[in-house]
Amino acid sequence: MVENKLKREIPAKYADQYGVYDGEFAHIDSYQAATKTIKPIKPNESKLLGSIHEAIVKTGLKDGMTISFHHHFREGDFVMNMVLAEIAKMGIKNLSIAPSSIANVHAPLIDHIKNGVVTNITSSGLRDKVGAAISSGIMANPVVIRSHGGRARAIASGDIHIDVAFLGAPSSDEYGNINGTKGKATCGSLGYAMVDAKYADQVVAITDSLMPYPNTPISIPQTDVDYVVQVDAIGDPDGIAKGATRFTKNPKELLIAEYAAKVITASSYFKNGFSFQTGSGGAALAVSRFLRQTMIDEDVKASFALGGITNAMVEMQKEGLVDKLIDVQDFDHPSAISLAENADHYEIDANMYASPLSKGAVINQLDIAILSALEVDTDFNVNVITGSDGVLRGASGGHSDTSAACKLSMVIAPVVRGRIPTIVDAVTTVVTPGSSVDVVVTELGIAINPARQDLVEMFKDLKVPQLTIDDLKDKAYAITGVPEKIEYGDQTVALIEYRDGSLIDVVKNV
Amino acid sequence: MVENKLKREIPAKYADQYGVYDGEFAHIDSYQAATKTIKPIKPNESKLLGSIHEAIVKTGLKDGMTISFHHHFREGDFVMNMVLAEIAKMGIKNLSIAPSSIANVHAPLIDHIKNGVVTNITSSGLRDKVGAAISSGIMANPVVIRSHGGRARAIASGDIHIDVAFLGAPSSDEYGNINGTKGKATCGSLGYAMVDAKYADQVVAITDSLMPYPNTPISIPQTDVDYVVQVDAIGDPDGIAKGATRFTKNPKELLIAEYAAKVITASSYFKNGFSFQTGSGGAALAVSRFLRQTMIDEDVKASFALGGITNAMVEMQKEGLVDKLIDVQDFDHPSAISLAENADHYEIDANMYASPLSKGAVINQLDIAILSALEVDTDFNVNVITGSDGVLRGASGGHSDTSAACKLSMVIAPVVRGRIPTIVDAVTTVVTPGSSVDVVVTELGIAINPARQDLVEMFKDLKVPQLTIDDLKDKAYAITGVPEKIEYGDQTVALIEYRDGSLIDVVKNV
Repeated sequence: MVENKLKREIPAKYADQYGVYDGEFAHIDSYQAATKTIKPIKPNESKLLGSIHEAIVKTGLKDGMTISFHHHFREGDFVMNMVLAEIAKMGIKNLSIAPSSIANVHAPLIDHIKNGVVTNITSSGLRDKVGAAISSGIMANPVVIRSHGGRARAIASGDIHIDVAFLGAPSSDEYGNINGTKGKATCGSLGYAMVDAKYADQVVAITDSLMPYPNTPISIPQTDVDYVVQVDAIGDPDGIAKGATRFTKNPKELLIAEYAAKVITASSYFKNGFSFQTGSGGAALAVSRFLRQTMIDEDVKASFALGGITNAMVEMQKEGLVDKLIDVQDFDHPSAISLAENADHYEIDANMYASPLSKGAVINQLDIAILSALEVDTDFNVNVITGSDGVLRGASGGHSDTSAACKLSMVIAPVVRGRIPTIVDAVTTVVTPGSSVDVVVTELGIAINPARQDLVEMFKDLKVPQLTIDDLKDKAYAITGVPEKIEYGDQTVALIEYRDGSLIDVVKNV
Repeated sequence: MVENKLKREIPAKYADQYGVYDGEFAHIDSYQAATKTIKPIKPNESKLLGSIHEAIVKTGLKDGMTISFHHHFREGDFVMNMVLAEIAKMGIKNLSIAPSSIANVHAPLIDHIKNGVVTNITSSGLRDKVGAAISSGIMANPVVIRSHGGRARAIASGDIHIDVAFLGAPSSDEYGNINGTKGKATCGSLGYAMVDAKYADQVVAITDSLMPYPNTPISIPQTDVDYVVQVDAIGDPDGIAKGATRFTKNPKELLIAEYAAKVITASSYFKNGFSFQTGSGGAALAVSRFLRQTMIDEDVKASFALGGITNAMVEMQKEGLVDKLIDVQDFDHPSAISLAENADHYEIDANMYASPLSKGAVINQLDIAILSALEVDTDFNVNVITGSDGVLRGASGGHSDTSAACKLSMVIAPVVRGRIPTIVDAVTTVVTPGSSVDVVVTELGIAINPARQDLVEMFKDLKVPQLTIDDLKDKAYAITGVPEKIEYGDQTVALIEYRDGSLIDVVKNV
């Protein structure tokens, strides 16, 4: 065992392979960009194939290779299940899969794991059934959990080498010019898929909306695509928008949102030209609502909103409160529509969004980020990947990326959820180190990270209750009692990579 | 000496190094994409530097490295002269320069060559004074002439490895998000520069129009830029549009244009959804005018126009005759404006435009190309790089790319220019092999390449005089007499790369 900087124990084998977390910018060094094999396409050669089966044959996909998918269709994705079903039928085994994330809809993956079709996984997250199955120990090799920026880094630096990317394309022409704003299953930005397309040896565009050549706008260009396959349906539009949240009426969430907005607007960052990222939860959307009102009242305009774009941001831009939307992913249909229609709503890839090894990600220019948490501990470490029972059910997302890079990172969370404390002595799993978290906002008040004495000074007259993080934990435990220790097994079921590729934690089987 | 497929003699030393031309698609094989060294930028690090001098210091530029520039400012470019002057002052020697092309305005380059600052050059073209100086033998190493697609190929495959790209940026923010449609010296598309930015180890954006962050649209993203330098002026807008041609009134050019338009509209390619590229010469623009009228008369609409965009194409799009403009470079100011304002006017990079080693360039989808020539010979080989005196004065451009890939390639040229024949026994220098040229159009009529018997059949009833290429040559010689043989020296002053990287010809000193 090797203990990393956060005193998390990393099995020596994995510590050797990945290195261990040693501070937010300890491993940021020059490197050689990954390369790929390019098979040129001559004039008169067609890229259009008749089926996914034919595409798998043409790519020469074989045992042991790495394939990737994107999660822009979220709970409406048909592509990963379709492709894996065909691969399984063809008898190909021992694949590594590198989807940008895994949703509930991907439960058929469990059988592919059990049957030896899929033997390695890297993903931002694992939900419900798949998460529970992995946590039960069905895989010999641990899943590698990567943040959105960390995945882009891993691909750009060659840690993940994708042999074949199977990319759901809301619209494509026969030569592979793809966008996510036209077609039957529009998802808006293709920010995660763009990275796969750029670095994969071979790319198969799977579309249900074949457009005349040239299909524009071009999110993924023909020069990054080898084959195009037309199918009946690549996704369920309702599933794409599933989980897109309306403004909450929950009084606890509203109070958290109100406090968070007060912290933002009282900060020195709140001035003309500021920038923010809010995420998509109920409380996060409510923050936008309170923030919006103060921006109107005080005549403050933002230069850009980043993310994870929601209709709340789109509406603020329409009102003239936000100059530009910088979009790696859309959480709802209105945002996808806005990307299509509004030149100041701009699509970027995940590398530009958040990679710590890029020549400067957009998050480096970000003032304020609102982030969620399953747990926060008294060292301000945050868990967004496992439940309090230790079972994989969340997603790393852009959490550790944004919080490390922005100027004011705020984690919003209720003190308890039902009978489970959110503020705890030690998080079940660390995804984001406490050094990246500036302010924790709860319904009982805020706790400022004592490492940020400038913020303590800045907020000394703020009309929001201020507590220490230990106070918040005590209040949580007063309601729930001290949580029982989780009984783990000996098997490592997931490695939690920090965005720089080092291991910040591991997850054991339950 | 090695004789290539066109019986051009290539000195053994260069034949060994580059390989020799052996047919249009003889060298199109899978390859490993070039890589680059990335120096990550952390939060709070600034890219903004005070001067070009400081940028040169920061990049660590030293003797023997390769630097690049783009030619989107054409005769209005200030950047290459500014940067080379500073480099010379700093005493750095023995540089390779890889501009996308070289204009008359770059005459100071001659002194940098003589002083040993610049010892290797690759470029699409060489004009007037620089061309004459090189042809006189001032360089020990031959200039490597590459087509636009060939340059993109060379960069993408690592044949050209750019240590530092110095890119004139019509507008940029402090983090290096660049476009060519805003700012004081707008050039429109940055299609050539985009390739440099993608593959260079380090990129310096030099701008006279610093914009608030984030500057959109983003032609070159912050993730491809290391440093940003603000200067007073990067280019002269009048020079950018210099050479942009009005519709000709020259009766010979009009006749050529009329014949060319008849060939197009009588071809089987002329139907709804066809595509074309015309270039920017006087006769080429006149072709657009005749073509436009027939499109209106016969109610035929094009899917896209490619290039090299001119106002003539922009106007046709505004009239609804052309669905989309696909733009690697703008030849005039109205085209740059259109790129900014029109979502169906789409910017692409030179790799996507024309690289023979890409996963399919746009030219592969092109129906008809109108191309110019300094000379055409009786084997249909075309010279666009040297005058009839053997002196370097032209540019390879997209000539060999487009003609190889499109379905109907037409070379338009007068039979003679003044006392110089255009149609000759053997071109002074081969840039484009005759196998790529389908029809030669002159004021005396057309000559169809006998290799295209389908076209001979297609045009058998065409109301345009039809001659053999030998007839055309005889008519030219009847006017000018048989041209005298050029007296060459022993020094190889330029290597003419075919688009695949092999040598199609060399140029000797005069």
